[in-house]
Amino acid sequence: MTALKDPIPADTRASDQKIIISVDAMGGDRGPAAVVAGISRSAKKNDEIGFLLHGPKDTLEKLVAKRKNLAGRCEIRHAADVVTMDDKPSQVMRHGKGTSMWSAIDAVRAGEATVCVSCGNTGALMALSMVRLRKLPGVNRPAIAILWPSRNPQGFNVMLDVGADIRADAQDLLQYAMMGSSYARNGLGLTRPRVGLLNVGTEEHKGRAELKEAHELIAGVADRANIEFVGFVEGGDIPGDKCDVIVTDGFTGNVALKTGEGTASLIGDLLKGAFQFSPLSRLAAVLAFTSMQRLKKRIDPRRVNGGVFLGLNGTVVKSHGSADAMGVSAAVKLAFQLARSGFSDKLAARVASATTLAQDAPKSADTASQNGK
Amino acid sequence: MTALKDPIPADTRASDQKIIISVDAMGGDRGPAAVVAGISRSAKKNDEIGFLLHGPKDTLEKLVAKRKNLAGRCEIRHAADVVTMDDKPSQVMRHGKGTSMWSAIDAVRAGEATVCVSCGNTGALMALSMVRLRKLPGVNRPAIAILWPSRNPQGFNVMLDVGADIRADAQDLLQYAMMGSSYARNGLGLTRPRVGLLNVGTEEHKGRAELKEAHELIAGVADRANIEFVGFVEGGDIPGDKCDVIVTDGFTGNVALKTGEGTASLIGDLLKGAFQFSPLSRLAAVLAFTSMQRLKKRIDPRRVNGGVFLGLNGTVVKSHGSADAMGVSAAVKLAFQLARSGFSDKLAARVASATTLAQDAPKSADTASQNGK
Repeated sequence: MTALKDPIPADTRASDQKIIISVDAMGGDRGPAAVVAGISRSAKKNDEIGFLLHGPKDTLEKLVAKRKNLAGRCEIRHAADVVTMDDKPSQVMRHGKGTSMWSAIDAVRAGEATVCVSCGNTGALMALSMVRLRKLPGVNRPAIAILWPSRNPQGFNVMLDVGADIRADAQDLLQYAMMGSSYARNGLGLTRPRVGLLNVGTEEHKGRAELKEAHELIAGVADRANIEFVGFVEGGDIPGDKCDVIVTDGFTGNVALKTGEGTASLIGDLLKGAFQFSPLSRLAAVLAFTSMQRLKKRIDPRRVNGGVFLGLNGTVVKSHGSADAMGVSAAVKLAFQLARSGFSDKLAARVASATTLAQDAPKSADTASQNGK
Repeated sequence: MTALKDPIPADTRASDQKIIISVDAMGGDRGPAAVVAGISRSAKKNDEIGFLLHGPKDTLEKLVAKRKNLAGRCEIRHAADVVTMDDKPSQVMRHGKGTSMWSAIDAVRAGEATVCVSCGNTGALMALSMVRLRKLPGVNRPAIAILWPSRNPQGFNVMLDVGADIRADAQDLLQYAMMGSSYARNGLGLTRPRVGLLNVGTEEHKGRAELKEAHELIAGVADRANIEFVGFVEGGDIPGDKCDVIVTDGFTGNVALKTGEGTASLIGDLLKGAFQFSPLSRLAAVLAFTSMQRLKKRIDPRRVNGGVFLGLNGTVVKSHGSADAMGVSAAVKLAFQLARSGFSDKLAARVASATTLAQDAPKSADTASQNGK
């Protein structure tokens, strides 16, 4: 059980040896070939990474053998079973021991790897992560955080929860604020992140009861937690520059994420259509090619691929199910950054301190119920 | 009280005389000049419209006098007070009698106009509309519906509620499905609209309890209500082609709307930046100009400006607070279309029939609670 309490000893060895990332090779829409191509891409760019790759040994050995740069840097762990996109999380929790997903998470649990990456079924991955890695003390609901292209200088904002749980009470939202800030510090390099609480208006009297209560809780600990709380924000602020971290429940966050992705995708397709409309516009497309590539790179979801599970003893990066080699490589890069910064330990410390801060704070429930009339 | 029961006699006279739109001249971010410019624009394009314009007489007379095409087609109704964006709905309900907003709504109540248009404070407009026009029998929570650019042949999908109320139970969601379909029939010309219920996954076991119950309720009446129920949809389907009407609560809908708008606006700005990056890309911008204008026209929010309040005895169109002349004109056009189609009466008939259908349906609460385990 020692491994459970301190699952990330690799952090301390970061400077003198490779950082090991545990990768679930199965469960993505494009199969293990895309995953192996992705880690090969990462290996090419970064000498400091090593891999534990989980899945059917025969299949993986063939794929890895084709990538010469993975020689000596990728250990294969045999797991015969695969969690599919249709499997129910509850079934996977009970019967998933032989799956590549289980094996990939357990490598983090055992301290063999610092971060786990999977393209598989999100619900199953969260369920297994909770059971095998367990929640951090003080965290009731873990959350999935993503990076969202924004108008801020750092280019991205953090939003959480985008779908770990469909509900969140005021205490959960407070924890999300702490965990999201910690992610913004380690993932985006912000020393004092600005945190906003997602609502349907910015006036303090608006919104659901739990949001008013969470507003009080976060405001009460903001200074001591070294965050700037900007109060309520709206959907338009998710890609905006009013705050760096957007806190919401997993239902709202998931709808917002998918609405934003869908809108961006529609605009992209309409743009393509516009460029193909006439000979003149097709010529324009040729001239604008590099500029458009730059724009695409800026908002391409594959380049910021990876929802991070926060609130567990260890870090899990959920790559998009349809991720190609570039997408997998982006998720691995994120996993590497978080591993190297010692993110898991820092996050645990933040959460512990926030719990203490909230307990020290004046009883916010009283204030909230006064406002809730 | 006769006026209250049948507020829209104008519909029946549509063919032989003007359709009167009641317009609140005040409360928008750009003041009455933008509103008068907008209705002048509409008057130019459409001979069948007449206006009742509400606000301070002196100001409005001067503005209207400048627009020759409004002569004889725009009656000014004096109202000295203005509802500001900061006014609380509850205060406006109690003390708002002298405001242009109140006056504009009351013209619909009195049957003098068919539809009311306002750029003012949404919360106050909804509160006043509920008090003065009253809810349709069978409707507990009225909703605000908007048109969203989509991949469907009709170019737009209907989404509701986008912010009339922050919560909705299963019965409310059923009514939204009926009201949204009625809007899709009259606003988009679809005979059998496809309706989706917004959730975080498309599997039937997912999501909140009220969503599972609403799923059963809508499925139970779909055939007889002449809609095609596609079940649960996700945020990505709002701009998609899987359904024509997206049903959700006002909290989620408002966040989704503003997230979509914010994402589109960010991409637009990045696109502008990309075209200005180099001499080559600036040349491309010149060549692509007409194609880009066409794209802009397709997704310009000003061209689909207008949230429609559904579930009241009469129709209210909420124009964007920052609407310019083009935006106001788009809202007036929408109001005119709805007025001419006799939308209010048709909607009332739909809602009444859905209430009957739901009562006739097998007790769906039982089925829902079985699924809700």
